[in-house]
Amino acid sequence: MRILVTGAAGFLGRRVIDALLTRGTLRDDAGAAVPIDAITAFDVVRPEGFADPRVTPMAGDLSAPAQAAALIDPTTTTVIHLAAVVSGQAEQDFDLGMRVNIDAMRALLERMRAAAPGARLLTTSSVAVFGGELPETVPDAQVWAPQSSYGMQKAVCDLLLADYSRRGFIDGRSLRMPTIVVRPGKPNRAASSFASGIIREPINGETAICPVAPETVLWLMSPDLAVRNILHGLALPASRLAQGRVINMPGLSVTVAEMLAALARVCGAEVAARVRLQPDPAIAAIVNSWPGNFDAGYAKSLGFTADADFDGVIRAFLALNGQR
Amino acid sequence: MRILVTGAAGFLGRRVIDALLTRGTLRDDAGAAVPIDAITAFDVVRPEGFADPRVTPMAGDLSAPAQAAALIDPTTTTVIHLAAVVSGQAEQDFDLGMRVNIDAMRALLERMRAAAPGARLLTTSSVAVFGGELPETVPDAQVWAPQSSYGMQKAVCDLLLADYSRRGFIDGRSLRMPTIVVRPGKPNRAASSFASGIIREPINGETAICPVAPETVLWLMSPDLAVRNILHGLALPASRLAQGRVINMPGLSVTVAEMLAALARVCGAEVAARVRLQPDPAIAAIVNSWPGNFDAGYAKSLGFTADADFDGVIRAFLALNGQR
Repeated sequence: MRILVTGAAGFLGRRVIDALLTRGTLRDDAGAAVPIDAITAFDVVRPEGFADPRVTPMAGDLSAPAQAAALIDPTTTTVIHLAAVVSGQAEQDFDLGMRVNIDAMRALLERMRAAAPGARLLTTSSVAVFGGELPETVPDAQVWAPQSSYGMQKAVCDLLLADYSRRGFIDGRSLRMPTIVVRPGKPNRAASSFASGIIREPINGETAICPVAPETVLWLMSPDLAVRNILHGLALPASRLAQGRVINMPGLSVTVAEMLAALARVCGAEVAARVRLQPDPAIAAIVNSWPGNFDAGYAKSLGFTADADFDGVIRAFLALNGQR
Repeated sequence: MRILVTGAAGFLGRRVIDALLTRGTLRDDAGAAVPIDAITAFDVVRPEGFADPRVTPMAGDLSAPAQAAALIDPTTTTVIHLAAVVSGQAEQDFDLGMRVNIDAMRALLERMRAAAPGARLLTTSSVAVFGGELPETVPDAQVWAPQSSYGMQKAVCDLLLADYSRRGFIDGRSLRMPTIVVRPGKPNRAASSFASGIIREPINGETAICPVAPETVLWLMSPDLAVRNILHGLALPASRLAQGRVINMPGLSVTVAEMLAALARVCGAEVAARVRLQPDPAIAAIVNSWPGNFDAGYAKSLGFTADADFDGVIRAFLALNGQR
């Protein structure tokens, strides 16, 4: 089994690769555990720090004409496509988002179709595909009405992935992820970046700015569970995906106020006091267009899971960061 | 006012142009009637038969690099994009469908953004964007789940049009049309071609083959009303489209059996007897994935209308063809 991971230098890509290496095998459609022989870890910057000999790091631009051909050949069994321009940046630079989020995906799909037909492709989509008038709990049958270019681009990729799968060009599955919280490291240019920042920065002794109102409802998943759900989605036999290839993930529905209350409970009121409310209408407009709760019945029927509560999400972050 | 019509050699494009010429003006957002100075009638084959000096026929490939630039300049106020590879053909030739239905649309959008920012773009989408498990009456909030490459391509165009409009690059509106019945002329490669054929051919004294079961429910609109709804959509001020740029049209929900009963009522039992049932699983699979009834509440609130009954649709066809 030979796997390509794009976005491998990102925090999620890195963890997915680590989890694949630790696991060592992936189940095929017959349920047999097949050894993972090789992982190509690809990103715009060369992913560093993979000591395992099964990993080959590579750098390049996936939207460049020959790149997909250099990454995928008939021995490729699996592609995990995580590379993307994030929401805030795709809104600021429309052309960059189109090139990376749509054109690169098309290049990948076309190369898989030509060189490795029927190979498995897992990618992540986003709740940013939703918008407009929404019920409190979004059903799986909710129409997509993106209010950002990022959401539009992810929805386009979902449509392409589903049709390439229907035609048998690939065996795709797109997991529509909640906002991943708590991300380690630095803020990024996603409109949702603050959702990790208001937990991570205070824990690290820093002040954090919350650009949205406390009553804002978010739909979240912890990094650990995101990795587990991605590996779960990768191992699902195609025969179980009769209801579709684009799957709204389960998640945890919490308000910003509840997140901060959990932070005070788990880490102390003085830590939670490091968060300062400072509304940013541009960010609030994007974030408020995303739904805060989903039914996700299809995903649950397939065995995908959600975090139990936000206190646990914070504790998992502390454990990972070795701070408790 | 300078208008570009793509797909101008098609039966709908031709009628839209005739209607624009007859009307002579289009309302702007302030409600003022602005004269139509020029119409570029574009298609892969040069549209013939326009005697009006306001019409300039042109032929070319809209997905070719320089074509959109040759068609749209800063004086272009309005684009009516009807050119498409139809459903059956897009299913048979995936690459052709991608090129014409998606790449050409992107070229058009990019050229409008560059040369005529904010110009109005009207295009037609399709009920083929829907599929999978569907309620009997499809609500406006129904998720898109295309079961054909044509449906996927139309859904991608809808997403692009909506986001280009949101960003102010264009002023777009996509009318998600029912199957247009009764089309004049010859059968085409749309999976829905039979829906016109089973009325048109018997009226012309010919045998027609019906490839789907009599209980198949179709969602229809007459050509006359399609043209009227397109002109209505073109004149709607952008301010009224707050609920979205992609609009499920109202339509007439009828079964094939009801269509044939109407044919017998209007034209006689001997005419209806010219239809022979001969199931075609490939066509039935596509057609059965399309919903047969829609709520279309948003469209109705905007003043779009549906045919009253199928007898009237047949009578309109007879009148147009001068046969009664």
